[in-house]
Amino acid sequence: MIREREIIARLRRIATDPAARGLLDDAALLGDLVITHDSIAEGVHFLPFDPPASVGWKLVAVNLSDLAAKGATPAAALLSLTIAGDGKWEAEFIDGIEAACACYGLPLIGGDTIAIPTGAPRVLGMTAIGKAGANVPGRDGGQAGDRLWLAGFVGDSASGLAQLKLDRDARGPLVEIYRRPVPLLAAGQAIAPHATAMLDISDGLLIDALRLAEASGCVAAIDLGALNLSREFIGERGDSLEARLFAATGGDDYALLAALPPRIDPSTLNLPEAMTMACIGPLQPGPAALKLSYRGEAVAPPETLGHEHDGQSAAPMVDRP
Amino acid sequence: MIREREIIARLRRIATDPAARGLLDDAALLGDLVITHDSIAEGVHFLPFDPPASVGWKLVAVNLSDLAAKGATPAAALLSLTIAGDGKWEAEFIDGIEAACACYGLPLIGGDTIAIPTGAPRVLGMTAIGKAGANVPGRDGGQAGDRLWLAGFVGDSASGLAQLKLDRDARGPLVEIYRRPVPLLAAGQAIAPHATAMLDISDGLLIDALRLAEASGCVAAIDLGALNLSREFIGERGDSLEARLFAATGGDDYALLAALPPRIDPSTLNLPEAMTMACIGPLQPGPAALKLSYRGEAVAPPETLGHEHDGQSAAPMVDRP
Repeated sequence: MIREREIIARLRRIATDPAARGLLDDAALLGDLVITHDSIAEGVHFLPFDPPASVGWKLVAVNLSDLAAKGATPAAALLSLTIAGDGKWEAEFIDGIEAACACYGLPLIGGDTIAIPTGAPRVLGMTAIGKAGANVPGRDGGQAGDRLWLAGFVGDSASGLAQLKLDRDARGPLVEIYRRPVPLLAAGQAIAPHATAMLDISDGLLIDALRLAEASGCVAAIDLGALNLSREFIGERGDSLEARLFAATGGDDYALLAALPPRIDPSTLNLPEAMTMACIGPLQPGPAALKLSYRGEAVAPPETLGHEHDGQSAAPMVDRP
Repeated sequence: MIREREIIARLRRIATDPAARGLLDDAALLGDLVITHDSIAEGVHFLPFDPPASVGWKLVAVNLSDLAAKGATPAAALLSLTIAGDGKWEAEFIDGIEAACACYGLPLIGGDTIAIPTGAPRVLGMTAIGKAGANVPGRDGGQAGDRLWLAGFVGDSASGLAQLKLDRDARGPLVEIYRRPVPLLAAGQAIAPHATAMLDISDGLLIDALRLAEASGCVAAIDLGALNLSREFIGERGDSLEARLFAATGGDDYALLAALPPRIDPSTLNLPEAMTMACIGPLQPGPAALKLSYRGEAVAPPETLGHEHDGQSAAPMVDRP
């Protein structure tokens, strides 16, 4: 068995061009363009009974979130579309693509549409291109002494997904956030000029924080008590350590995690008014690692820090209806 | 049933940005970059028993062929990879990606790797980015009076595929061309500055010529007797009208079809030495149409002009082993 992580390691050895940034980032930097590609597969990244328009929205949003984490301004997108049936699903899917592209000013400029056998899991991809700002933070520039800041909430999406796994007709704000995440473009653009490192939380705060720590060669010391949790999340799952670990490992958040020098006070940045930013701990010197605490006590990191890309993710999220 | 062509028509209505060129081209033009995305699916665009490295090669080649048709110089690529099993197939597939990228100087700078359920048809995509030359021919600039020139052979690939359908262990130059097409980058770069329209023959010469005629608003009058056929093709299928219609509708050729003003003599261009170019007929005034002839006699266009993107293509090419 060749695991996903070995395949990615192999690709990294091929991707030697500086624009690739060692494939250690979610986006490439080609001249003044930030370029990213994200794919999603039916039954793995979305539920077969998710409304198709929400899947289209999400595909745009997850790509824009990668641009947000680089502080880039959306410029263009290419859509990779499969048609796996009578085309009705795909027509509604495109409604969601269109709505999200219009909402975030992302022109659709190309792509490819191919037919696949009826009943095959749909695989949908988008290449998003953004104009880079003056600084394009990677994952690897964090310095011991920097502070880790979290923009946006974690846990809402995983909580909504958990509701849907119990009841496919579940409704409410958490389900809505799972289905229609909001890319934090304005926040990313405001933070990027000052960030030594930044990424978006797609796989889970803890695993993404560890990746930042590993790429930057330092320790990420995270106070779980400092995480931003939404009122809706707390209403659903409470505010215990267990709930906070769930929020920190659930993924699909599209919050931003940034390392900022201690002199930077995010409240002085030009952030959107409603944006919640929390300092969740420092980067510390030492071999790359993750240290957790809660109410002043050390907490052992959970066995699973998030979605680990280890090939296990191929298990369907739910049985197909 | 919503057919593939309706889905594409819908996407065209969304893609209003000038960079999209109305999605009437195989590539977008963003600033001085030509950007294309092609996807291929197992059982539809390649055979489940095709050597994985040849599939990787082909994915790179079909994308580079789109750049060739715009006269662009390869600059960067992003790979969209699914893993649908133990990863061995994908590791060999990447060998082919690496070989083709090295051969054509295409740096791999990013992409996405996702796991899909074991046994699901693989869907593989690539976004290729090229530097535009001074002229980036679309499909729509052809003028009545221009001549249509075909660079490269048609029919070899379809002939190789036909051999494989009869015998999955078939070998030889035609099978090799089906599996490892050669993008005509140097020819494209030499022709593009003079071409009023150009595209690559991916779906079949006749259907692609009709698309050029439709986009340009004129008649494509093609002399089937003038098509370039390789010695290997003639050895396999002969040189009858039937063989020529097979070659003109088979697709997967990655030859280039260019409209050139009559004053341009391609033999004076800086073409690669071995490149075969043939004038296959004029563009004529009149409502968009395709007119065929052979040895001075009119020939009725065949019912199927090539691969029509009508949703019928989802039928597996062969039964899965």
